Amino acid sequence: MSDPFVVVGADAAGLSAASKFRREAPDGEVVVFEKGRWISYAYCGMPYFIAGYVDRMSNLLSLSPSDVDERGIDLRRGSEVVAVDPDAKRVTVETTDGDRFEQAYDDLLVATGARATTGFFDVRGVDGAFTLHNMDAAAAIDAYVAEPDAYDPERADVSAVDRERVDRNAAMPAPETAAVVGGGYVGVEVAEALSERGLSVHVFHRSGHLLSPFGEAVGNRVEEALEAEGVTVHTDAPVEALVGDDRIEAVEIGGDADGATTDRVPVDMAVVGVGIRPNTDLLEGTGVDFGAGGAIRVDDHGRTSLPDVYAAGDCATARHAVTGEPDWVPLGLTANRAGRAIGATVAGDPTLVGDIAGTAAVKAFDTEAARVGILDPEEAEAAGFDPVSETVTAGSRSGYYPGAAETDVTLVADGDTGRLLGGSIVGTDRAAIRIDTLGTAIEADMTVAEVERLDLAYAPPFSPVWDPILVAAKVLNGKIDG
Amino acid sequence: MSDPFVVVGADAAGLSAASKFRREAPDGEVVVFEKGRWISYAYCGMPYFIAGYVDRMSNLLSLSPSDVDERGIDLRRGSEVVAVDPDAKRVTVETTDGDRFEQAYDDLLVATGARATTGFFDVRGVDGAFTLHNMDAAAAIDAYVAEPDAYDPERADVSAVDRERVDRNAAMPAPETAAVVGGGYVGVEVAEALSERGLSVHVFHRSGHLLSPFGEAVGNRVEEALEAEGVTVHTDAPVEALVGDDRIEAVEIGGDADGATTDRVPVDMAVVGVGIRPNTDLLEGTGVDFGAGGAIRVDDHGRTSLPDVYAAGDCATARHAVTGEPDWVPLGLTANRAGRAIGATVAGDPTLVGDIAGTAAVKAFDTEAARVGILDPEEAEAAGFDPVSETVTAGSRSGYYPGAAETDVTLVADGDTGRLLGGSIVGTDRAAIRIDTLGTAIEADMTVAEVERLDLAYAPPFSPVWDPILVAAKVLNGKIDG
Repeated sequence: MSDPFVVVGADAAGLSAASKFRREAPDGEVVVFEKGRWISYAYCGMPYFIAGYVDRMSNLLSLSPSDVDERGIDLRRGSEVVAVDPDAKRVTVETTDGDRFEQAYDDLLVATGARATTGFFDVRGVDGAFTLHNMDAAAAIDAYVAEPDAYDPERADVSAVDRERVDRNAAMPAPETAAVVGGGYVGVEVAEALSERGLSVHVFHRSGHLLSPFGEAVGNRVEEALEAEGVTVHTDAPVEALVGDDRIEAVEIGGDADGATTDRVPVDMAVVGVGIRPNTDLLEGTGVDFGAGGAIRVDDHGRTSLPDVYAAGDCATARHAVTGEPDWVPLGLTANRAGRAIGATVAGDPTLVGDIAGTAAVKAFDTEAARVGILDPEEAEAAGFDPVSETVTAGSRSGYYPGAAETDVTLVADGDTGRLLGGSIVGTDRAAIRIDTLGTAIEADMTVAEVERLDLAYAPPFSPVWDPILVAAKVLNGKIDG
Repeated sequence: MSDPFVVVGADAAGLSAASKFRREAPDGEVVVFEKGRWISYAYCGMPYFIAGYVDRMSNLLSLSPSDVDERGIDLRRGSEVVAVDPDAKRVTVETTDGDRFEQAYDDLLVATGARATTGFFDVRGVDGAFTLHNMDAAAAIDAYVAEPDAYDPERADVSAVDRERVDRNAAMPAPETAAVVGGGYVGVEVAEALSERGLSVHVFHRSGHLLSPFGEAVGNRVEEALEAEGVTVHTDAPVEALVGDDRIEAVEIGGDADGATTDRVPVDMAVVGVGIRPNTDLLEGTGVDFGAGGAIRVDDHGRTSLPDVYAAGDCATARHAVTGEPDWVPLGLTANRAGRAIGATVAGDPTLVGDIAGTAAVKAFDTEAARVGILDPEEAEAAGFDPVSETVTAGSRSGYYPGAAETDVTLVADGDTGRLLGGSIVGTDRAAIRIDTLGTAIEADMTVAEVERLDLAYAPPFSPVWDPILVAAKVLNGKIDG
């Protein structure tokens, strides 16, 4: 038992695990292999960097390599783990210097994250076309958006940055119009960001409303919020092609069920955000079990089906609080929390990674939206429920108090048992943070009747007597009872 | 069974009950006796009216008498119920016209509310001295604060208002300095209100920190918030006397344990907010059971110990979610919810009034504070718990996101079981509304370990990866485990 705890990937899950392990087992050895140059960066902060709300890219880094070193973690950047031998309990590592070696482990954590899918688009060869899934892309987009003579190279103030790519993008003429391909939350955030930078922005979304996992009530209000700020939203508008040889010139939209191209929108920038998928190549062929979304299936302690091999973060499943089944909802807290729990477990203190409730929040200018649990009726039915739902509009504060704003709450419950299955909230006044009340209720297996009786805070500046959540519960409960 | 449902008191609890009863039993008869002229007013809104955030007093009324009439409720204002005969099932009513009659009931709801205590101060004979516990007082304070030639009589635009009192106060010279006696939440709100109206305000609080039920972390930050806006806060400063013959001239403060007067602060206005107590006179001598705070003890359906007699709102107890025992926490949602449940029960649909968690929120300028459950160690011990607590300071948003603000979270748990007993939150960015997450966790009997694993929303504009609540749970859980 003298081999180290080996971690693959130096972002949220990997470094949380390594840090917690070192705190719990100060004499233990942990080696973190990271194939790239970047570590511990705030993926979720990239749109706000592009928007200009954040001045320096370095602000998006939680930990520097020297911080990691101070924690007693043996961090090896530029070191890709290319193979795992679970029987021999060792990994094969290739470095950017061309070295190749094997490393034995006592325990292994695979925290390889996810990568942006581009659908059938290949953005690599076209100037002005991007995906946003790493810091180099964020730096490149930020540079591309600026006028060549107005770009401040200090914005990309991290040594790891691909400076050549930044410089090349900074030198190009600034775009005036942009297509955001995909109206999920990254799409919405990027649309706001590019609009804040002065571009005329088009968002193209394949289905009928933006932010599909947030439900229609949220999608519609977010669409209104974007349009109110000058963003043009195209729903039921699948982008069929990016047009342009060297530089992007237009996007082509399929307008009907046959996919016939009916429209071409000229743009001089495109950001493709059509989804992500888990990075699982490392464990292909090892016999490991995979689960929802093709992610690595793990148990309630983050263990894979291979002995002493854990997985966490965007490459792994997590147990859904509503269904009790493994699901794949790659988000930041899940990664941090699972990593931390696995670090404790490996150090000898078995710790649950915790369920996920699918909690997510997003903003579009001043409109805040959030969702939790199961909103989609088909998904609820597939999990064996009889979904009943209601959407209400209620005030965020007492009606007489300045700033009271219309807040839409959707609740979904099981008609048989009354159990709360999911919910969404959208509005302009403290709307998103209210989702945590629903998330807590869902994790506690509460019924809508119990939610209706919750003693939520009432104070005129923050909430009316009946909080919008209580109003929604009251209406939905009436429907279930009646 | 042909006698009506009789309700005593036409505010939150009484009118909620009457309205719900009529909706559920459209053929049923309900009579509401109200001794005064006012009905259905937003007590909690009065400080914001005084502050000038609300232009018209009529905005604070939820329902007008004609609204009530349209609901099929027989509302009798100026009709005081002076006696209850629970054996004969009838009440005695005296009207302001001098009539006296008896009214039989099938079911009776006592919703007589609470009244401000003034301690040993008699504010009635002294101009410039007030308590704030009804709309006439709010109108009088608002008029008194204005310069005589600048007062807009349209602000008190409700026919029920005591116009003579308003006019008399409006005619007096405007005050320049005010004493707020009592630093509970009404005191804090009134201090802000009077400061917003341009007065130099002193708050005098008997104990060591403001907002005693919110705990020290909140009290200290709220004190800082008030001081930052020019309000002078005196803690450990019990006011011993209001000085002045016709008009208030000063307050005298007892400075040490012997109560020797050590200070006299000249003021030309004083608002006394040292607490409220339940209006229970009506049921004295009936043999009804009383409970916490001297309030009328009720069961989980709002029933008193007398047959067919219910009580709800500020005059009644409610079951505390942490202790399971009847408690007295007079707040608006509790009254509305209990009234509504009793209306349904009387109409034939037995409905739980629901537990209380002692949830309360308050603001002091831009600082928001909230509390829930049991925070006081002595109270926790008295309830059989072994309280352990922690206060952490954490960011309200991702550190790089503009507007991230320091948020203090205090959690209290039972050291034996890990069960969450109470919490408080204070900060300037969406702090108060976060209390609902803790309230929901408390009502679900969650442990701190379970709170630590909650899947709360993470989005940089609203919350860091580890929400301040999760940070606090993590630290407290470490203390309990360790």
